[in-house]
Amino acid sequence: MKFLQKFDLKFRGLRNKGKSPLLRKLDLMHESSLKQTVKRNYSDYISRLEAEYEARNHRPKYLPRSTSEKFKYNGSFHEAVGKVFLVAQFFAMMPVKGISGPLPSELSFAWRNWRTLYCLLFILSTLTSIGFTSYKVFNGLITFNNIEPLIFRGCILLVCVNALMLAKKWPALMMYWYEVEQDLPQYQTQVEKSRMAYTIHMVMFVGMMLSLAEHLLSMISAISYSNYCHRTDDPIRNFLTTINDEIFYVFNYSVPLAMWGKIQNVYSTFIWNYMDIFVMIISVGLAANFRQLNDNLLKFKGMHMPPTYWSERRIQYRNLCTVCEKLDNAISLITMVSFSNNLYFICVQLLRSLNTMPTVTHAVYFYFSLMFLIGRTLAVSLYSASVNDESRRTLRYLRCVPKESWCPEVKRFTEEVNSDFVALTGMKFFNLTRKLVLSVAGTIVTYELVLIQFHEDTDLWDCDQSVYA
Amino acid sequence: MKFLQKFDLKFRGLRNKGKSPLLRKLDLMHESSLKQTVKRNYSDYISRLEAEYEARNHRPKYLPRSTSEKFKYNGSFHEAVGKVFLVAQFFAMMPVKGISGPLPSELSFAWRNWRTLYCLLFILSTLTSIGFTSYKVFNGLITFNNIEPLIFRGCILLVCVNALMLAKKWPALMMYWYEVEQDLPQYQTQVEKSRMAYTIHMVMFVGMMLSLAEHLLSMISAISYSNYCHRTDDPIRNFLTTINDEIFYVFNYSVPLAMWGKIQNVYSTFIWNYMDIFVMIISVGLAANFRQLNDNLLKFKGMHMPPTYWSERRIQYRNLCTVCEKLDNAISLITMVSFSNNLYFICVQLLRSLNTMPTVTHAVYFYFSLMFLIGRTLAVSLYSASVNDESRRTLRYLRCVPKESWCPEVKRFTEEVNSDFVALTGMKFFNLTRKLVLSVAGTIVTYELVLIQFHEDTDLWDCDQSVYA
Amino acid sequence: MKFLQKFDLKFRGLRNKGKSPLLRKLDLMHESSLKQTVKRNYSDYISRLEAEYEARNHRPKYLPRSTSEKFKYNGSFHEAVGKVFLVAQFFAMMPVKGISGPLPSELSFAWRNWRTLYCLLFILSTLTSIGFTSYKVFNGLITFNNIEPLIFRGCILLVCVNALMLAKKWPALMMYWYEVEQDLPQYQTQVEKSRMAYTIHMVMFVGMMLSLAEHLLSMISAISYSNYCHRTDDPIRNFLTTINDEIFYVFNYSVPLAMWGKIQNVYSTFIWNYMDIFVMIISVGLAANFRQLNDNLLKFKGMHMPPTYWSERRIQYRNLCTVCEKLDNAISLITMVSFSNNLYFICVQLLRSLNTMPTVTHAVYFYFSLMFLIGRTLAVSLYSASVNDESRRTLRYLRCVPKESWCPEVKRFTEEVNSDFVALTGMKFFNLTRKLVLSVAGTIVTYELVLIQFHEDTDLWDCDQSVYA
Amino acid sequence: MKFLQKFDLKFRGLRNKGKSPLLRKLDLMHESSLKQTVKRNYSDYISRLEAEYEARNHRPKYLPRSTSEKFKYNGSFHEAVGKVFLVAQFFAMMPVKGISGPLPSELSFAWRNWRTLYCLLFILSTLTSIGFTSYKVFNGLITFNNIEPLIFRGCILLVCVNALMLAKKWPALMMYWYEVEQDLPQYQTQVEKSRMAYTIHMVMFVGMMLSLAEHLLSMISAISYSNYCHRTDDPIRNFLTTINDEIFYVFNYSVPLAMWGKIQNVYSTFIWNYMDIFVMIISVGLAANFRQLNDNLLKFKGMHMPPTYWSERRIQYRNLCTVCEKLDNAISLITMVSFSNNLYFICVQLLRSLNTMPTVTHAVYFYFSLMFLIGRTLAVSLYSASVNDESRRTLRYLRCVPKESWCPEVKRFTEEVNSDFVALTGMKFFNLTRKLVLSVAGTIVTYELVLIQFHEDTDLWDCDQSVYA
Repeated sequence: MKFLQKFDLKFRGLRNKGKSPLLRKLDLMHESSLKQTVKRNYSDYISRLEAEYEARNHRPKYLPRSTSEKFKYNGSFHEAVGKVFLVAQFFAMMPVKGISGPLPSELSFAWRNWRTLYCLLFILSTLTSIGFTSYKVFNGLITFNNIEPLIFRGCILLVCVNALMLAKKWPALMMYWYEVEQDLPQYQTQVEKSRMAYTIHMVMFVGMMLSLAEHLLSMISAISYSNYCHRTDDPIRNFLTTINDEIFYVFNYSVPLAMWGKIQNVYSTFIWNYMDIFVMIISVGLAANFRQLNDNLLKFKGMHMPPTYWSERRIQYRNLCTVCEKLDNAISLITMVSFSNNLYFICVQLLRSLNTMPTVTHAVYFYFSLMFLIGRTLAVSLYSASVNDESRRTLRYLRCVPKESWCPEVKRFTEEVNSDFVALTGMKFFNLTRKLVLSVAGTIVTYELVLIQFHEDTDLWDCDQSVYA
Repeated sequence: MKFLQKFDLKFRGLRNKGKSPLLRKLDLMHESSLKQTVKRNYSDYISRLEAEYEARNHRPKYLPRSTSEKFKYNGSFHEAVGKVFLVAQFFAMMPVKGISGPLPSELSFAWRNWRTLYCLLFILSTLTSIGFTSYKVFNGLITFNNIEPLIFRGCILLVCVNALMLAKKWPALMMYWYEVEQDLPQYQTQVEKSRMAYTIHMVMFVGMMLSLAEHLLSMISAISYSNYCHRTDDPIRNFLTTINDEIFYVFNYSVPLAMWGKIQNVYSTFIWNYMDIFVMIISVGLAANFRQLNDNLLKFKGMHMPPTYWSERRIQYRNLCTVCEKLDNAISLITMVSFSNNLYFICVQLLRSLNTMPTVTHAVYFYFSLMFLIGRTLAVSLYSASVNDESRRTLRYLRCVPKESWCPEVKRFTEEVNSDFVALTGMKFFNLTRKLVLSVAGTIVTYELVLIQFHEDTDLWDCDQSVYA
Repeated sequence: MKFLQKFDLKFRGLRNKGKSPLLRKLDLMHESSLKQTVKRNYSDYISRLEAEYEARNHRPKYLPRSTSEKFKYNGSFHEAVGKVFLVAQFFAMMPVKGISGPLPSELSFAWRNWRTLYCLLFILSTLTSIGFTSYKVFNGLITFNNIEPLIFRGCILLVCVNALMLAKKWPALMMYWYEVEQDLPQYQTQVEKSRMAYTIHMVMFVGMMLSLAEHLLSMISAISYSNYCHRTDDPIRNFLTTINDEIFYVFNYSVPLAMWGKIQNVYSTFIWNYMDIFVMIISVGLAANFRQLNDNLLKFKGMHMPPTYWSERRIQYRNLCTVCEKLDNAISLITMVSFSNNLYFICVQLLRSLNTMPTVTHAVYFYFSLMFLIGRTLAVSLYSASVNDESRRTLRYLRCVPKESWCPEVKRFTEEVNSDFVALTGMKFFNLTRKLVLSVAGTIVTYELVLIQFHEDTDLWDCDQSVYA
Repeated sequence: MKFLQKFDLKFRGLRNKGKSPLLRKLDLMHESSLKQTVKRNYSDYISRLEAEYEARNHRPKYLPRSTSEKFKYNGSFHEAVGKVFLVAQFFAMMPVKGISGPLPSELSFAWRNWRTLYCLLFILSTLTSIGFTSYKVFNGLITFNNIEPLIFRGCILLVCVNALMLAKKWPALMMYWYEVEQDLPQYQTQVEKSRMAYTIHMVMFVGMMLSLAEHLLSMISAISYSNYCHRTDDPIRNFLTTINDEIFYVFNYSVPLAMWGKIQNVYSTFIWNYMDIFVMIISVGLAANFRQLNDNLLKFKGMHMPPTYWSERRIQYRNLCTVCEKLDNAISLITMVSFSNNLYFICVQLLRSLNTMPTVTHAVYFYFSLMFLIGRTLAVSLYSASVNDESRRTLRYLRCVPKESWCPEVKRFTEEVNSDFVALTGMKFFNLTRKLVLSVAGTIVTYELVLIQFHEDTDLWDCDQSVYA
């Protein structure tokens, strides 16, 4: 035993040989302070672990189980989006069973389920609607402006079909995500756990309210327009003819057809807004998970942690990357449609903004609609960019790992975070980051300038043609 | 001996000194489970190796040798492209002997071979054709639209000459590639081995069929056009005069000249399509090789593998990179011509799309042709981008190497995959990746918008001039 | 003890086994020279450290304390910007108490302080001014050119509000920065310490002088314009009506209103220039700090330094990165406004440059103003890019670390410098680097070319409308 | 002693414990083959070193010293550019003494040297010429096309002044470069050593010949133009008036003034071409040095080299990077002027290409001039990109370092090559790489399309105005 102590001493002696007394003293001081830090950090870590363990086992017992369960969040994404997807199901999206259940294991998809049939019915209805629109568009002049209803309905169809495909994969996807989430370092308080759900509900609520307001304004504007042009004496008939002009371009006026057209229109408008909200919600979920990991790293920032700690975090980070990639593969078509659709509509609206508005109602509707469109596009961009931002933030904490705690695991973790690029993409053609916002803005300005070139003040509010998206 | 055991124990003791009992217990549990995993993985790997060895030696014997040989793929690129290049040789491309032989060692190139002479003859014929075209173009108005036949024929010439240069290097290139391929971890089943060949044949078949359809449509369109304008009473003469207007701009009508013009036209159209298909085929081959490597890494993903395993894979990866670079150097001029040609033609076609079509036949041909062009360009882009995609996928498996198996070799491999950029290029001016597709699309849209600016609805279907590519 | 010497010898023997005598000799020579270098470097370092220590303790004593204190710089950013911010406070910016104190600990912000109230008063005044301007703009034709006063005043308001928000955070921010600065390796001489302050004062002085010159020229130009158009006989009234046309579009002429308008105009012009200067000053400060670190690295470049040296430098570098990030978060809105504002104004001015000037006075003012604008934009770009340039320069010294001194700490430092991107940003949408200058120049040229397209020589100097920014 | 052997054996035993017999056998085989390789490589390396040593000492002795010296290249850049700079000095560039001496230590710069005075005289002459040109330009209409002579002369002045500044730094710069070059692994044969000099001479020769041809064509074109418009009966006077129209816009015709104008014009044309050639020559020199290093790495590619080998190479690579940076700092203004000048002139020429040429002489001159311009720009781009290409090629050899030879030095070398970006730059605003060529081409096409927009076929060959660059 003694031999080894001597060996140790000898070894230290060898190491210190080349140093001046001043430096050696500094080293000693440094070493002793280091030891204390290590000890403090270790015990700190252990006591925290124990506290956490306690906290998990000794939950408050005075509440009756049903109540406590009801208000308790497990903080999973599946749980958070339950209600949002229930609303979506009402509008023929996301035909998956068990969407509001507490666990993703209850999720299931079947072709013979009424949800799926409902969804297929709506796709059929959209196809018919596209048929009418194409007929009208191809019989007229094809311009950047006139093909707008066709592009609108085409995007709706694309998203619907893709949502059906997605629904098939959804149960497996959610199971995987749920497992990864459960493996993450858990938040201690209910407030922290419910944060993601709160953000998601707010995004859905605000988005839907604005979309509703925009739709109502659009109806008011259409009513005033149809009365101004009034072809018949029946104001309701005028209104319904106006908004379904592609149907009554083919058939004579009939109430059931008009009703179907209106319902189709409401559903389409919902889905048009919903696809943006959907991308936002997924982004919020992913970013929240990365934040959960980062918050844990922040808690132990600058402390001396054992290699196993870093190894665990690295694997959790890796899992989140995999979740992000799987989700991206599943939804990237929707993302692509959402972005290009918004880009196209902003350009069309800006082009129209050059014309003079016939009435104040139109002006109010038009500018509200344009602002909503730009705001929504910006929101989608920034929310989806936040996934990338959060995933990069991990690096900040890794930079502060103290010298003594620097081990191969930390090194590997750092290199992986550094070289991986975690972000949602538009079919891998472009990444959704903050830089994209600038490019999109630049593109819009450039296109606008080019569009202005063509511009001659044509009377888009002519009674013989109407443009309502 | 005992001394060492004590030493060992002491050493462990030292390591564990700083840890709390809880952590020590966790470490022990971790260690024991680790040992089992390692053991399992090792034996797994060994048994697999043995199974592979068995599989190689004990092939099914009940089939007569000839039959078994006939249906057996060795999975090499050389074998897969044999038939494709046979077709190409019929159209004066790729004048290499032994292209359909089982081994690349049979390949040879000679200037005095009939294939080479055939190829040189076609180049001469193309040169003559370019002469006629130049004469006609430079005697007329030079516009973006009118120089199209010249650019078309110029590209054909460039590709032909380059293909001849390539043929010289081909035997050495294939030998190198074959050796690298043989060194890769082999697939076990015939299905997996034949996958690359199947894809290549499909690309060739679909490409050729669409190209044929497009050519027939172009002929029908030309016939209807020539009859509409009919200069003489002979419909065949009208047709041949129409499609060879650059020849009969100089000479009087004669059947042999018209025949030569038609044949030249057929060959040119084939080569025009073939250059895109060629780039696709090379890309499919390279991507398949990277996939072969990745599939092996996937098989052992997350397992505890010995350093020699990683070292082998790294060298294989390196070899594939070298193959990719050598091929890129050899074909990058063709890639460049293919891309810029497609870009130019899409722009020209989009410009023409602004004009009204004289007949339905023209409209059908025109839109089919435009769709085919855009689709082909997209296919070339995506297939060539897949090389880069596959080469990056390796990283995904390296990220999952368990902590215990992390060694300098894995680290080196990871860093190399991370920092190397493996992709086909257009003469190193641009890399063929998925991002390129977006840039190309953006460029097309921008050019289109600029082209529209110049546009005045000129009657391109005027009988005094004809435009057939 | 002897045992270990033998062990050591044995070990060396093992290592040298594989080498030829020639190589072994080379190794020996190398080793001995190395030892000498190490020794020399070490003693060099120690003696320098001691000299520094001496220099700190034995300051010149012949100067009376008050004088020596007065001329002594501690080299901190807080100290350097004291006077600059005092001037800013006079123009209702940066309402923080203790701005000219020697230590940042004296800084404080309070809502009830007269500085804050002064600032709020100015914001209110700006709001009123924006009201008048909006009324005038929206009652006229809205063009790229006409909305200029609105954009000008909007930007002023945005910057003012943001400056108020910044003032709240300023004390904490400065405290943090001061601590980081004190921790950096200090300069030895007063000249080196005062360099940053000198640069900052020069930037402020030159910027303010040019801005003053521009404002005076603008007044002369306005006077000549108002006299040329003379509506009344009173030249002063003419002048004041001209520059406050948005007020007297609503109200009748009154001297107090005109006075308020003029003062508001002077303040706005100051702030418009100040926001650019502010970004420059922050950049100068950050770049100077990085240079301080780099100068220390340069001093010991190529020497054999102990790991603790590198560890210290790494942590200092890390701290500077954190300072840069914190500052960027605080000021990035101002940066964004400053850049986009300059971009817009350059475009508008270039558009106006196409018109013929009515008088020589106008031409002189116009071209001076344009040159000033372009020069200022370039200066902001280059100063803010220097932060990134300086942060990258660290790498140059790390590349020269000798082989023997290469340790994990140097490696980590190198990798961090290599992979981190330190720069001011425009709300994280774009980074301020030298490459940005090229993009900005490119954008301006492109926009200019597009603007020229719209251009018809309209008489902007018509007496019925006036444009003075 | 025995104890250690046992220890060693035990240790090996421990290592092999976990392996199966099959793997152990593989390991043994691998190890023995490795040993042989190492031995072979080592002895290979040593014998090469000795051979090199021999080769250096035992030079052929049968040649008389004077002759052998005369034909012997030391392969340095200084030696290679001697004659090129002699020519440049004749045209008032590079006023450094001792430019054709064998060693850079003989270089010197003095303000009072006749070369410097000559250079200053030319700058004065250029300034006068700019004065005349400005007077003419500002008295006429200012368009993209008309300011061309001013931009041409301005660039010449800028380059001249910068060349003078460069001349001051040149001796120190060359000394440093020479030392770095001497430290590089030397080529063995005279052919290899003279390669760089040969390339540089060819670049100079071809560039000058083409430039001469272009100048002669320009003169012929001017003569034919002046005779066509003939103002007087004297053809020489007509010619001299034509090419010096900015002088005779102010003064009456006089022969000495006309002579001065012509000489000034010849010198300017030389410098205009020389600045591109200069950038090419520097690029050739740098690329050649990187190639020298790479050729050495290629020689030992895949071999087992000692760490000192890698360490040497790394330091040599580092030195080359420093040389590249120093040179870039010195010449980047010239690079910038060269690039932007070429870009501007290509755009102007393309714009002019839209006009119809009055005579065949003009057409020949015009298209030759345009081709020369585009070719020169491409050559500058590709030569300067080759520096970056060569510096990246080092990585290829580092990727092939065998596993056994992988040491921290190789790792560090790899990481440095990987992360450093070695290239000439345009004032650090853009890097000269192959990607730049594409951007430049894209920019030219875009500008051309925009320029076409403005285009109305104005008669640029009108007798009242002349445009000769």
